[in-house]
Amino acid sequence: MKARLGSLRRRKEPGASPGTLVHTGEVKADRVQIHRMDYDAERLNERELATVDEAFPLDEPGSVTWLNVDGLHDVGVVRTLGEHLGLHPLAMEDVLSTGQRPKLDDYGDVVYIAMRMVQYDPTTDDLIDEQVSLVVGPHVVVSFQERPGDVFEPVRERLRAGKGRLREAGADYLAYALVDAVVDHYFVALEQLSDAIEDVSEEILHSPDPASLERVHDLKRSLVFMRKSIWPLREVASKLVRGEASLFQPDTLVFVRDVYDHAVQVIDTVESLRDIVAGMHDIYLSSLSHRMNEVMKVLTIIATIFIPLTFIAGIYGMNFQYMPELQWRWGYFVALGIMALIAAVMVVLFRRKRWL
Amino acid sequence: MKARLGSLRRRKEPGASPGTLVHTGEVKADRVQIHRMDYDAERLNERELATVDEAFPLDEPGSVTWLNVDGLHDVGVVRTLGEHLGLHPLAMEDVLSTGQRPKLDDYGDVVYIAMRMVQYDPTTDDLIDEQVSLVVGPHVVVSFQERPGDVFEPVRERLRAGKGRLREAGADYLAYALVDAVVDHYFVALEQLSDAIEDVSEEILHSPDPASLERVHDLKRSLVFMRKSIWPLREVASKLVRGEASLFQPDTLVFVRDVYDHAVQVIDTVESLRDIVAGMHDIYLSSLSHRMNEVMKVLTIIATIFIPLTFIAGIYGMNFQYMPELQWRWGYFVALGIMALIAAVMVVLFRRKRWL
Amino acid sequence: MKARLGSLRRRKEPGASPGTLVHTGEVKADRVQIHRMDYDAERLNERELATVDEAFPLDEPGSVTWLNVDGLHDVGVVRTLGEHLGLHPLAMEDVLSTGQRPKLDDYGDVVYIAMRMVQYDPTTDDLIDEQVSLVVGPHVVVSFQERPGDVFEPVRERLRAGKGRLREAGADYLAYALVDAVVDHYFVALEQLSDAIEDVSEEILHSPDPASLERVHDLKRSLVFMRKSIWPLREVASKLVRGEASLFQPDTLVFVRDVYDHAVQVIDTVESLRDIVAGMHDIYLSSLSHRMNEVMKVLTIIATIFIPLTFIAGIYGMNFQYMPELQWRWGYFVALGIMALIAAVMVVLFRRKRWL
Amino acid sequence: MKARLGSLRRRKEPGASPGTLVHTGEVKADRVQIHRMDYDAERLNERELATVDEAFPLDEPGSVTWLNVDGLHDVGVVRTLGEHLGLHPLAMEDVLSTGQRPKLDDYGDVVYIAMRMVQYDPTTDDLIDEQVSLVVGPHVVVSFQERPGDVFEPVRERLRAGKGRLREAGADYLAYALVDAVVDHYFVALEQLSDAIEDVSEEILHSPDPASLERVHDLKRSLVFMRKSIWPLREVASKLVRGEASLFQPDTLVFVRDVYDHAVQVIDTVESLRDIVAGMHDIYLSSLSHRMNEVMKVLTIIATIFIPLTFIAGIYGMNFQYMPELQWRWGYFVALGIMALIAAVMVVLFRRKRWL
Amino acid sequence: MKARLGSLRRRKEPGASPGTLVHTGEVKADRVQIHRMDYDAERLNERELATVDEAFPLDEPGSVTWLNVDGLHDVGVVRTLGEHLGLHPLAMEDVLSTGQRPKLDDYGDVVYIAMRMVQYDPTTDDLIDEQVSLVVGPHVVVSFQERPGDVFEPVRERLRAGKGRLREAGADYLAYALVDAVVDHYFVALEQLSDAIEDVSEEILHSPDPASLERVHDLKRSLVFMRKSIWPLREVASKLVRGEASLFQPDTLVFVRDVYDHAVQVIDTVESLRDIVAGMHDIYLSSLSHRMNEVMKVLTIIATIFIPLTFIAGIYGMNFQYMPELQWRWGYFVALGIMALIAAVMVVLFRRKRWL
Repeated sequence: MKARLGSLRRRKEPGASPGTLVHTGEVKADRVQIHRMDYDAERLNERELATVDEAFPLDEPGSVTWLNVDGLHDVGVVRTLGEHLGLHPLAMEDVLSTGQRPKLDDYGDVVYIAMRMVQYDPTTDDLIDEQVSLVVGPHVVVSFQERPGDVFEPVRERLRAGKGRLREAGADYLAYALVDAVVDHYFVALEQLSDAIEDVSEEILHSPDPASLERVHDLKRSLVFMRKSIWPLREVASKLVRGEASLFQPDTLVFVRDVYDHAVQVIDTVESLRDIVAGMHDIYLSSLSHRMNEVMKVLTIIATIFIPLTFIAGIYGMNFQYMPELQWRWGYFVALGIMALIAAVMVVLFRRKRWL
Repeated sequence: MKARLGSLRRRKEPGASPGTLVHTGEVKADRVQIHRMDYDAERLNERELATVDEAFPLDEPGSVTWLNVDGLHDVGVVRTLGEHLGLHPLAMEDVLSTGQRPKLDDYGDVVYIAMRMVQYDPTTDDLIDEQVSLVVGPHVVVSFQERPGDVFEPVRERLRAGKGRLREAGADYLAYALVDAVVDHYFVALEQLSDAIEDVSEEILHSPDPASLERVHDLKRSLVFMRKSIWPLREVASKLVRGEASLFQPDTLVFVRDVYDHAVQVIDTVESLRDIVAGMHDIYLSSLSHRMNEVMKVLTIIATIFIPLTFIAGIYGMNFQYMPELQWRWGYFVALGIMALIAAVMVVLFRRKRWL
Repeated sequence: MKARLGSLRRRKEPGASPGTLVHTGEVKADRVQIHRMDYDAERLNERELATVDEAFPLDEPGSVTWLNVDGLHDVGVVRTLGEHLGLHPLAMEDVLSTGQRPKLDDYGDVVYIAMRMVQYDPTTDDLIDEQVSLVVGPHVVVSFQERPGDVFEPVRERLRAGKGRLREAGADYLAYALVDAVVDHYFVALEQLSDAIEDVSEEILHSPDPASLERVHDLKRSLVFMRKSIWPLREVASKLVRGEASLFQPDTLVFVRDVYDHAVQVIDTVESLRDIVAGMHDIYLSSLSHRMNEVMKVLTIIATIFIPLTFIAGIYGMNFQYMPELQWRWGYFVALGIMALIAAVMVVLFRRKRWL
Repeated sequence: MKARLGSLRRRKEPGASPGTLVHTGEVKADRVQIHRMDYDAERLNERELATVDEAFPLDEPGSVTWLNVDGLHDVGVVRTLGEHLGLHPLAMEDVLSTGQRPKLDDYGDVVYIAMRMVQYDPTTDDLIDEQVSLVVGPHVVVSFQERPGDVFEPVRERLRAGKGRLREAGADYLAYALVDAVVDHYFVALEQLSDAIEDVSEEILHSPDPASLERVHDLKRSLVFMRKSIWPLREVASKLVRGEASLFQPDTLVFVRDVYDHAVQVIDTVESLRDIVAGMHDIYLSSLSHRMNEVMKVLTIIATIFIPLTFIAGIYGMNFQYMPELQWRWGYFVALGIMALIAAVMVVLFRRKRWL
Repeated sequence: MKARLGSLRRRKEPGASPGTLVHTGEVKADRVQIHRMDYDAERLNERELATVDEAFPLDEPGSVTWLNVDGLHDVGVVRTLGEHLGLHPLAMEDVLSTGQRPKLDDYGDVVYIAMRMVQYDPTTDDLIDEQVSLVVGPHVVVSFQERPGDVFEPVRERLRAGKGRLREAGADYLAYALVDAVVDHYFVALEQLSDAIEDVSEEILHSPDPASLERVHDLKRSLVFMRKSIWPLREVASKLVRGEASLFQPDTLVFVRDVYDHAVQVIDTVESLRDIVAGMHDIYLSSLSHRMNEVMKVLTIIATIFIPLTFIAGIYGMNFQYMPELQWRWGYFVALGIMALIAAVMVVLFRRKRWL
């Protein structure tokens, strides 16, 4: 559950000065890796940086620089980059405190975007989430991730391939491409979640047991958490579409509208899945009730049939000296016959009541 | 459930370049069929196209051309049509990715409308859904469907009949007529769903079993899905009514307002049915509880009456040497009498408590 | 349930041309009756029309004409009236298709208002609903009802009495009076529904059985349906209050605000009743559980007391040759004593646990 | 429940003319009492009026007149007062129809305010509610109550004491003071309700029975009703704060904002209590389930232990001629030993499963 | 529960004059302590005041004075401070009535902010809450707390340390820092609550008993209460961000936006936890049902197997004179064999039905 309530973790001591740069949260990467790509329509340079100082100076204005930072535990890296880009101390703090709610803060010539990336692990039913921050300047984008991962790899491939709009457009388009990649990842997670739901659904209908119920509740939590991550991301996209960040060109906004549509679609699907999962507990209980009823019915029928018969046997087991039936020649068989008759009548009765 | 979560399917690899034309989703038609109708108030030409190239050139400005494409798996067809009409690459991609949320994108001189058409299959309780896209230009409408179907047949009939406003009005009115046909189809599906609900409702009250519960949950999901399809369609109509797409003439908007009203009515009905279906699970559980109670009561009564009697029989079945009652002349009959008395008292008692 | 999902019925074949005049829905009146009243402050003429042609010409401008049509199955009547008044074909179609959502369409010099009139039948727990349409012109009001009824009788009486504002005011005030009469009828239905709820509530607490549960669900559906009818009616009133229909004079709007308040009050009451009805299912289940627990307790206690006693009797009913107790002089009585003791201890124990 | 659905009672026959003055609702006072206070900063006159005619003329402009009317069944009183003040007939009708939703109607130089006063009766768990209407003119306030009560007594005391702002301010401030007194009364009722909830909560946890469940539902209804009364009252305050009633001076609005805050606080508390009460039904059911489980467990254990033992006893009670064990010297004791062993094993087993 | 419904407590007698200064609520501090800090960028004076009169005069305009008052039971202190600062009587009353809903009242040159500080006590599952009021003037901040506590200690430390923005900025920034400290405390409480939820969750799954259910409901109430405290605090922040309090400088608003973000994050987390807690009751019930089913199954199986066997034993325990089987040489063993066979068949049957 840690991951799910991740956004609960607070960045620093309560009451501490705002803008205090402290990394909070688990260290999820061994060392901080910085990857730099400089490109324009004609040219692409790409390399791993040994130290943060190689990140500057940026390339000449006509091109775009993308700095990708994996690992957040080195406060110095963040501070150096932030100060070079003229980032507000609060935004630097937000990069480091890995429990951010997705948001967009526009500081005029620099835009800060916080997002949450989700990954569903089907083997453990766990939702792993990670904070991804973007700092977008006029011709630079810095992306911060908690751990080395490849959600941005397809974007890198597209840059290398040199086809499409990406190489020709500006930093705002690159930022859009990265946001798009994150939103796209929600679809992957949703597809896996949906399969898991399908799965559990089968389980519950055919052999309801507490373990599958626990899985249902895990799924529910995952959806609650996803919802919590995607709603504010939709707001981020909506703010961009409304043109609240002047760094983003009108040309790019058509594409951002697309991201917005996808975010809405993710929300729609999350809500539908939530509806479906919400119904599962009910199915579980009904399924359980139904099984219990089946069991009870068998007990009832067997007990109800045999209890009177046993009573009759008990009567003729009594040791009274004067019990005329006992002397009868066919007494025993008559008794057995009566018993059989009673049993038969009961079976017929139960059949009629459709209990059998 | 695949169909129901249809909108989950993502158009392409996460992170791929926007505007990449890849058909995603099942291939639901054998081959792509293109049907072309050119008409104005006086004249109507209609024919099946052998290749997409016959779609151009369009007719002279005074008339309207309607191109209907059944089947989406031929990416080339979509690209050719899109490029001729000056469609934005993102919109072309949306045509091909068959999990679109209904939406309206206004690109100035071309309007893209995505809708979902639903069909309820009463034999399997399945809701089949299909993406229908419209591309509306100044005097052309292109409609894309996933499979050959006849939801637009009545519109074609009206065109052929040559009566009514349709032949005289422009492409925007044709687009309206097509949207109207899709919304109208929701009513058909709702009517069938409503009958199925009526049906299951009877089943549940009179013989609740898990199969009917499963049907309830299928119905619930169908409604969830329908709601997900019609809400954004209402938004599409609402955008049109507000005049956000300048291609649509004020004359046509009166009719679009009608479509909007119908969409709202569909939503109202879906919500009412959801309310009714939501109550069914409760009825099911109560119905089950009630039956179980009936069964339990019978067990209780029979057991409660016979257990003490059997005990008495047990007592006189003991083999103690000195048991005075056993020697009594009328012992046996007294014992039987006492047993009958106890049974009678119990029956009276249970009657009083209204358990019997 | 037919009536409840009434608004589901669609006006015509899906995809048919808008403005096609076809009556859909049950024929609820034998023949179409048209009643005409012409009045001004001094004068009142009233008569039944033999044919629709007598409806015209209207009276001179200073007076108001009210045409009330009972029965909708004669399409010709609606068309004739509609065309004389310059009604939009879509509105004519709406008059005829009796599943309209309440709405107000302003066509400038003619206003179309659709409402739903509800009536609760306490003997069958059924909610009967009927579509009432008003077409309001500068000095004419045409009201369409599905069946001859007298919800407008009080208005007619007021006109005949000649007192009050009604005779002096214009067609807009008459329209207000008719809307008010319809909204007032909701209060009558709600009062009856509320009595029925009170009734069922008693039933459920004191003798819960599935029949009363079915009644609860009927009541729930009636409320769902009422809600669906009154919400859009509130919107109609709200539109009028905001002055969206220029035909309505400011003087009349003060009264329309009153209607609006009443509609809100109806909604409030419907919501409260829904809250109360929603709780009933829970009460039913608890009531059932409680009864079942009572039954189970008795079984438990009797079984638990007698099972060990019967076991003891069983022991001394064994036929082992060497069973010393059997030879004891007081063996039988000791055994009986022990049994009584065990029973007493158990009763005390159960008393303590407050199960008895 | 009458009081709770009070607002259902309709003022007059459906369809009757608006502005018809008819008192509807119970007569809650023996006779109509009118109390008159005239005051300015220096002076205070106070007297009971014998007839309504003594209410006029009002005092000279510099002072404020407060007329308090207890009892509404004398239509003449309301009409006389209303006509003198130039009150709209609809407002007069609202005063008399005691099922009003709280509202504010601004007629320019006269403001009509309807409120509902609630009182909780802890002995019967009943919520008593009463309509209080205020008619505010430039230097006069008329308050109408259904029954003689003292919710306004503290205001009278403050007027008599002559301290504070009240004596110096105008009629609008007096109106504010009266609204404040009504809102303050909600806190009293809420405090009592909250105690009752606390109470029932204890009851349910420790001895759940249907009576306490009925109390829960009474509390729920009381909260539903309170919510229905306070929400529109908040709107009234909100309208005043927004300056929609020009009679209210800006100086007074600061205080009205305070009333608004209190109304919001009442709503908050009502919602919290509703949340808590909503959970009670669940606790009740769980509490019941838990008790039933305890009972069932005892039955299970006793039955499960003795049933096999009784079976063994039954075997050796059979009368077969050749049953070797019966002849054994220690047969009886061995049988007893085996029985004891089986019982012991079972007890151990149940202990392990933690059923005992 | 007292604390949870704390905001219910009303400040004074209903109907009393607004602005009456009466302390309501528990006295939570022994004596009123006033702490004064005067600072500017260079200088910091700090001392405990013996009497309230030492609070004035304030320092020269260039510096900021922070007066922190612990304990509210001395009405004189509040009145003296309030009057010196020109505080509206209603605001003074709000300081003293400790059940305020968080709010911001802007009186032009003085801003009044009410907040609720929460603390979770994990040992008792209690949520302790306290009202904190801020009165902000052009270069003075007065903070009122109910009891001496150290939530503001970190702010004091930062002032003493003299680093950061705090010493250089104005009173508005100090006010921001104090609001931030309060909001930060919610994270601490949430983290503890979240741990408690985790805890109870385990409990419920593995040994569901009513005590843990009670804990669930306590947690639910705590969350309801927290929600009630933080929502209006968000509104306070939102008002500040929108620039509604002119005392707050644009420079400070960037930081207030940060507080706003944190409040939203608290709300998000509270809602997620509420979702999770809401599901717990269901898990509890299922867990209970499942256990009961297990118990019932054992009873059913044992009873169902032995009841027929005991019946057979009963038959051969009858004392009829002519019972041929009794004379058979192997009768006894055949009977035992049949019994074993029946038992075996049943066990196999139950296995197949997967009841065993």
